[in-house]
Amino acid sequence: MDLVQKVIEGQRPAIARMITLAENEAPEATQALRQLYPSTGRAYIVGITGPPGAGKSTLTDKLVKELRKRGKTVGIIAIDPTSPFTGGAILGDRIRMSDLALDDGVFIRSMGTRGSLGGLSKATSAAIKILDAAGFDYIFIETVGVGQSEVDIVKTADTVIVVSVPGLGDDIQAIKAGILEIGDLFVVNKADREGAERVVIELNQMLELNPNMGAWYPPVLKAIASQNKGIEEIVENINKHADFLQESGELMQRRKERLSNEIFDLILRQVSFRITSKLKEENFWEQELDQILAKEKNPYDIVQRVIKEILA
Amino acid sequence: MDLVQKVIEGQRPAIARMITLAENEAPEATQALRQLYPSTGRAYIVGITGPPGAGKSTLTDKLVKELRKRGKTVGIIAIDPTSPFTGGAILGDRIRMSDLALDDGVFIRSMGTRGSLGGLSKATSAAIKILDAAGFDYIFIETVGVGQSEVDIVKTADTVIVVSVPGLGDDIQAIKAGILEIGDLFVVNKADREGAERVVIELNQMLELNPNMGAWYPPVLKAIASQNKGIEEIVENINKHADFLQESGELMQRRKERLSNEIFDLILRQVSFRITSKLKEENFWEQELDQILAKEKNPYDIVQRVIKEILA
Repeated sequence: MDLVQKVIEGQRPAIARMITLAENEAPEATQALRQLYPSTGRAYIVGITGPPGAGKSTLTDKLVKELRKRGKTVGIIAIDPTSPFTGGAILGDRIRMSDLALDDGVFIRSMGTRGSLGGLSKATSAAIKILDAAGFDYIFIETVGVGQSEVDIVKTADTVIVVSVPGLGDDIQAIKAGILEIGDLFVVNKADREGAERVVIELNQMLELNPNMGAWYPPVLKAIASQNKGIEEIVENINKHADFLQESGELMQRRKERLSNEIFDLILRQVSFRITSKLKEENFWEQELDQILAKEKNPYDIVQRVIKEILA
Repeated sequence: MDLVQKVIEGQRPAIARMITLAENEAPEATQALRQLYPSTGRAYIVGITGPPGAGKSTLTDKLVKELRKRGKTVGIIAIDPTSPFTGGAILGDRIRMSDLALDDGVFIRSMGTRGSLGGLSKATSAAIKILDAAGFDYIFIETVGVGQSEVDIVKTADTVIVVSVPGLGDDIQAIKAGILEIGDLFVVNKADREGAERVVIELNQMLELNPNMGAWYPPVLKAIASQNKGIEEIVENINKHADFLQESGELMQRRKERLSNEIFDLILRQVSFRITSKLKEENFWEQELDQILAKEKNPYDIVQRVIKEILA
């Protein structure tokens, strides 16, 4: 397939087109991904997450520029909330990153959370593979770390950066705690704001409570992304973490796990598709819905019956 | 089963225990839910969602108190982010609602987002049924409306209230747009803050853009929940929406859809369980992972092979 070859050569329109195919779950996408697969596995994947307003986009922007200075190429996947009315990702072309968009060594793609969860995580995996095969040295995935699904996506990265910020309410602190476990690196952004030191201390305290702490103790770093402060240190820590993963053998372990989960997700998603179409086609319970609503039949019985019919 | 009878009689320890069983997906839970099912379908379900910091808890608190004044009983299910270290829901016993907790006509339950998405949505459906069978007039589900999964849960309600607040950043406005489609009622909380009027206008403008607008035009209401302002009007609009659903036949339609989705989710979840255990047991691809990582095999082939083996 011509498209795959063009992606591997790094041709931008081909990359964009193939991501769209994967996002739409077009039938030809699977075949293309199959052919692309042997060319993957070289990119280093960085996940960035944190609550809304933590300045993730600005931080990503600066980190990518620092990596560009060091001669690295970068693909960026931004998971954006989707407008249900327009159907597209709202933050769209990521205005804040517009100067990056002019850089040939950078490819930016927004992906919306339209459609089902399984769809998004599958599309993100595909986009990672496509950018990886296209030869980008680093791939950044940026999500809003509040929903479980977004957390699930970002945690597949080699290095996960959790961004905090001083002065958010209780709600947000709670959410932040929910993503503590997945952070390899913590950044307290907007560190010139009041309360930054307290956030650093709190994060360290919470990390100390983690009974599952491994050989890597996640550093808590301060930054003011908008002023480009603390950026180099973060990049250095990403590289340090990459070295740690490599030397400890954890990188292979992580990628194995990621691959295993991905296979499982692909299976489940296909099974789900087939079940859906089978159920729709055969109208398994539509005519019984009224009886169930009238409490004449029980939904749990229907569940058992259908499962028996579809599983081998 | 004794437990089911106690739940139907509204005994609080039995309600709590049965929700826990369902949350843990204990085998006896399905049987109990099966028995409980004929006693469900009387409660009116209200979903409340919005970004972190919008004051959803305070608003829920005041709405519930207003309903109590009107002689109604209320069950509350609060979907909280979970601490990965403690395993429990962080906001825990919902300190802000502590006076409600002393009220016999109110039952509050926090549910964490630990575990998988399918698990949470299944547990929430179960909790709704349990509180419904226990005789509560209203059931409130409160989620942080940022993650897709939380949105999916709240949109199963009869009336969905989307809470906004002035003065949040760009990120949040975008997220808010992502849940516009599901709102039956919009509340701009903290309406004494600067910019409240603008949020009202923006919401109305976005609603006007909705090409799928039906016969119900969602009202945009202002409130200052902490001062108990605007609360009665919201309750009245909930009731107005309930009347609309009833008279237009949409209530039955919504509940039918909800039931259909629920059956589908239950099937998919069980299928997923069986697939997981089958795959683990038979170690379908573990020994091939190294070959896949070495690009000697292709994950997409494995997916096809496994699907053939498990589907009838």
